[in-house]
Amino acid sequence: MSRVLNFSAGPSAIPLAVLERAQAEFTNYHGLGFSIMEVSHRGKVFEELHNNAIAKLKSFYNIGDDYAVLFLQGGATLQFAQIPMNIYTGGVAEYVNTGVWTQKAIKEAKIQNINYKVIASSEDTKFDHIPNFNFSDDADYGYICSNNTIYGTQYATLPSPKCPLVVDSSSDLLSREIDFKAHNIGLFYGGAQKNAGPAGITIVIVKKDLAARVKDSVPTPLRYTTQIEANSLANTPPTFGIYMFDLVLDWIKDQGGLNAINAVNEQKAAALYELIDNSDFYKAFAKPGSRSLMNVSFATPSAELDGAFVKLAEQNGMIGLKGHRILGGLRASIYNAVTQQSVQTLCEFMKEFQRTHG
Amino acid sequence: MSRVLNFSAGPSAIPLAVLERAQAEFTNYHGLGFSIMEVSHRGKVFEELHNNAIAKLKSFYNIGDDYAVLFLQGGATLQFAQIPMNIYTGGVAEYVNTGVWTQKAIKEAKIQNINYKVIASSEDTKFDHIPNFNFSDDADYGYICSNNTIYGTQYATLPSPKCPLVVDSSSDLLSREIDFKAHNIGLFYGGAQKNAGPAGITIVIVKKDLAARVKDSVPTPLRYTTQIEANSLANTPPTFGIYMFDLVLDWIKDQGGLNAINAVNEQKAAALYELIDNSDFYKAFAKPGSRSLMNVSFATPSAELDGAFVKLAEQNGMIGLKGHRILGGLRASIYNAVTQQSVQTLCEFMKEFQRTHG
Repeated sequence: MSRVLNFSAGPSAIPLAVLERAQAEFTNYHGLGFSIMEVSHRGKVFEELHNNAIAKLKSFYNIGDDYAVLFLQGGATLQFAQIPMNIYTGGVAEYVNTGVWTQKAIKEAKIQNINYKVIASSEDTKFDHIPNFNFSDDADYGYICSNNTIYGTQYATLPSPKCPLVVDSSSDLLSREIDFKAHNIGLFYGGAQKNAGPAGITIVIVKKDLAARVKDSVPTPLRYTTQIEANSLANTPPTFGIYMFDLVLDWIKDQGGLNAINAVNEQKAAALYELIDNSDFYKAFAKPGSRSLMNVSFATPSAELDGAFVKLAEQNGMIGLKGHRILGGLRASIYNAVTQQSVQTLCEFMKEFQRTHG
Repeated sequence: MSRVLNFSAGPSAIPLAVLERAQAEFTNYHGLGFSIMEVSHRGKVFEELHNNAIAKLKSFYNIGDDYAVLFLQGGATLQFAQIPMNIYTGGVAEYVNTGVWTQKAIKEAKIQNINYKVIASSEDTKFDHIPNFNFSDDADYGYICSNNTIYGTQYATLPSPKCPLVVDSSSDLLSREIDFKAHNIGLFYGGAQKNAGPAGITIVIVKKDLAARVKDSVPTPLRYTTQIEANSLANTPPTFGIYMFDLVLDWIKDQGGLNAINAVNEQKAAALYELIDNSDFYKAFAKPGSRSLMNVSFATPSAELDGAFVKLAEQNGMIGLKGHRILGGLRASIYNAVTQQSVQTLCEFMKEFQRTHG
């Protein structure tokens, strides 16, 4: 079988060019006689790759040396605990609840026994939009999830609080430019497995002065400062994941950078939302103004038809279209690696499905 | 350049057959049209692979359903903190200090503010041997590191205490059979990056009744019970690492299993130690009786000659032979994936180096 069209929510599609490059040098990196997986993270070869990846990411987000880029493990899930452990200082931590992933973050804040406050939520409408809110100027930090994979909602623009902003960007990492200064970002993080490579590497961009808040009672491996001081090499990092992440960064550059990527993402999403909105068959879940460019959650008129849609799509070489079990329905995840051509093929399939099943 | 002979301490050599199989299906797993990296950890395809890997590992170690096999992240380093967090119950935790990795584990026990005791240490002779000791019957747990990468020491046999035994097996994982019942093993773990695949996956085998000791105040992602209940899928696991680990398990089976692997490891180590012991030029660091089958730490008569050795070895296609910065000298890491032929080539090089530089 040739390659399928992959609309999975995560782990998800990786650019074919990236996969093919990794495949070509899988047993012999740069002709050096070893796989990049097989050598020390402290050796020259890996260290150069590692530092280049950091430099490229800092350049994409236009951030300076007041920020540290860390390649960690444990996913967003571990960050939910690490964040209050590291940057809570005894004031109030403010959270905006936009779905399962912020709920999990709030749960860990509670377990950490900190003074946290949920200042806004869209739970009463099943998280179909991003609520309005203002973080307190003097909060220890304000916490948001910029894209909510399950519901298909996304902040059109990030807030710009006076307190440090913490952003879980797991599912829209590297999908658009972000002005870290304008939004007063203190901590910006995400698992790689949606837009940035394979699962098992967590990208954390943290302001060094924020990381310095940590207390000595925090376990050494869970302090950002431990990894800042060691350039993420305090212990063996997920070297192959970092290598793949670096290839993805090169690929983004080849596409013209984050603005060019974002323009394509807008076109892909617009094609799907227009088709859905102009149809009396499909219905989008997320409210206009809060709609994600990464995950389009929608449904046919019935669960039965949703099931038939998923099955027929698979027969036509399109996978990953089943909605999350919490929401049901359908979902097309159209991360950076999903091409406009793939989205076009999906749109044609959707029209044909409506014609034959509507 | 063809493939080098790789004596790196970790990340380290992976069997070429494993690399080549992963390479062949890198963009198209089992002809399904996607990379194994690109699909959901909750989908049928990955789930089957994941469960097969668990079953194979349980079969190698001959363990039953009283143990859970978890694929975690964060390396041994995170385990140093997770272990006291999860299984300390207010008694005394006993540690045996055999080098840097147990020192780090002890440091985290201290940060966790538990009642711990270092009951034996070989620090006064720079960790050149495994000390004698007996764990208290009623200790919360007894902690050892079964192989000490830096110094090249290894427990010839594991202790068999009455208290639950915790084993950091990061650098001799899957190198020999272990009788979990005889040694009363409660927790057995290791990063994959030496004997079991790429960095970024931590194999944890934990007795379920031990894991059940955890308190509600422990962060959810750091509880073993969280991952036991979710079959390691509480959050996205390092899917590609698990895939590679599974291929390594198949490769071990192809070699005849752990006993066959161990027999080869004994021959490889014997060849090196005999050459060293019969020479008046090379000197082994570890004392007989405590010598590692995984890492042979040795030295020439001078730091200058050590440097010349490393350089000339590299020119002859052998990498990773520089000793750890703490110990200096030389080190040949001869994990499962290093062939007898590679060790033979190294032995010949060593004889020739002695002839020309001795």
